[in-house]
Amino acid sequence: MRKILVIGIGAGNPNYLTVQAIEALNRADVFFIPDKGTEKAALRLFREEVCARFIREPRFREVVVPIPRRAETPDYRANVDEWHAAIEASYERLFAEALGPDETGAFLVWGDPAVYDSTLRLLDRLLAKGVAFEHEVIPGIGAIQALAAQHKIPLNRIAEPVLITTGRRLDEDFPRHPGSVVVMLDGTVSFTRVPEPETVEIYWGAYLGTKDAILVAGRLSEVCGEIERLRAEAREKHGWIMDTYLMRRVGGASE
Amino acid sequence: MRKILVIGIGAGNPNYLTVQAIEALNRADVFFIPDKGTEKAALRLFREEVCARFIREPRFREVVVPIPRRAETPDYRANVDEWHAAIEASYERLFAEALGPDETGAFLVWGDPAVYDSTLRLLDRLLAKGVAFEHEVIPGIGAIQALAAQHKIPLNRIAEPVLITTGRRLDEDFPRHPGSVVVMLDGTVSFTRVPEPETVEIYWGAYLGTKDAILVAGRLSEVCGEIERLRAEAREKHGWIMDTYLMRRVGGASE
Ligand SMILES: C[S@@+](CC[C@H](N)C(=O)[O-])C[C@H]1O[C@@H](n2cnc3c(N)ncnc32)[C@H](O)[C@@H]1O
Ligand SMILES: C[S@@+](CC[C@H](N)C(=O)[O-])C[C@H]1O[C@@H](n2cnc3c(N)ncnc32)[C@H](O)[C@@H]1O
Repeated sequence: MRKILVIGIGAGNPNYLTVQAIEALNRADVFFIPDKGTEKAALRLFREEVCARFIREPRFREVVVPIPRRAETPDYRANVDEWHAAIEASYERLFAEALGPDETGAFLVWGDPAVYDSTLRLLDRLLAKGVAFEHEVIPGIGAIQALAAQHKIPLNRIAEPVLITTGRRLDEDFPRHPGSVVVMLDGTVSFTRVPEPETVEIYWGAYLGTKDAILVAGRLSEVCGEIERLRAEAREKHGWIMDTYLMRRVGGASE
Repeated sequence: MRKILVIGIGAGNPNYLTVQAIEALNRADVFFIPDKGTEKAALRLFREEVCARFIREPRFREVVVPIPRRAETPDYRANVDEWHAAIEASYERLFAEALGPDETGAFLVWGDPAVYDSTLRLLDRLLAKGVAFEHEVIPGIGAIQALAAQHKIPLNRIAEPVLITTGRRLDEDFPRHPGSVVVMLDGTVSFTRVPEPETVEIYWGAYLGTKDAILVAGRLSEVCGEIERLRAEAREKHGWIMDTYLMRRVGGASE
């Protein structure tokens, strides 16, 4: 039976790799490399660094999977669905052509494969279509954990919940949530639109885990401008940015 | 300067340790071991296994920190606060007595130190009191990630949020949350009280990461009884249980 490993390789720091992930890297015959275009070159470099450092006997093959561009129309979910269908077709062909019947293929997933990543969903769709393979998922240290560790904070306040959401949903989700809110996939500096920023604390981080990591923490009203400025500068300098942040109202019952 | 490492050692599987955590284990002169009583013996065994396996030159000392029992009155937050104050006093003394001025102490935290764990809060309280030390936080693979990886599921549905909450808050939090809900610290099988269980899917796991792991997934109306039974049996057999689960309403826009 063909086997597929979905390996979480952590969010930017090769030292985030787990023993389990390192063992999995060493079991793979083929790595499937999604080609998301040049803007993701930094991610490709990270994957290569991880393989070079942790694979003891490099006998693997690499297969580049062309990834169609996602449409940018307002219906995000429909775009994602359509985009997945296109990707599905390439993978189905690739599993058949690039992977021998008893071989092991692997996807190296940035951060944790369970957090805002489509690899597992794609595999489920292939399984549902009748493509035959076994698969295994290896968790990794995600951006949320890197954020908390680098700021040295717990995600939750005592006995309070934590909401993980996207920039797109923040305007709706933040005001009604009682605990901490973690925001990922934010293309539009949604934190600048939060009402009453003087009652909110923010812990922001970009390029977490990497040598370019930037951290800012403070009262949102006081650091909002600084984050916007640093974010724009860094994006200009690197050509891309990945940032994540945690916000919560202060002065609640737990203080 | 005294240095304290807060090391996430993963939720039950020694292979969850990261390269960074292994390096940190090897830097520690002293391990502080919270003594939470015999019911937590399994956790102590896990810590010992991790140290025995990953520390290359065992030259460390172990210092047991007596942990007062937490009161069980209804005001959970007040109990926790009071309990922390008592623990604080022991740590302050220990840092001074057990750790030389240039030595490195370490706490081995189950799972990820950022998720429902009080070690970071205690250190902040000691810093606020003027106790002098530097500290560093090393993220770990938490129970939530172990749950998702073992069920091979993403935590979020496409573009949807994820709420992490406690059993205590579930009755209030689940009905109004639009995405997936992850429940930890649930002593009272709160999933049995969810309304309209035929419209809810659950992914449940106990002893995740360990050889005793139990997984159940399905429509809540169909598996609720089975989970209750397995949970009671396992608790009886092991003398303790740790379980985590994810629930979401099915039949929403994203299906
Ligand atoms: C498609 S999601 C993938 C998340 C990944 N699976 C994880 O667990 O971290 C990409 C988003 O993750 C966050 N992110 C990933 N890596 C990051 C990093 N090194 N620093 C800051 N944010 C990061 C950003 O919010 C980014 O928009
Ligand atoms: C005090 S919290 C600590 C969580 C830990 N810091 C983490 O990141 O996993 C303890 C709760 O975590 C969950 N938990 C921890 N380890 C688990 C495991 N191996 N299997 C299932 N649930 C676990 C349970 O919900 C338990 O009540």
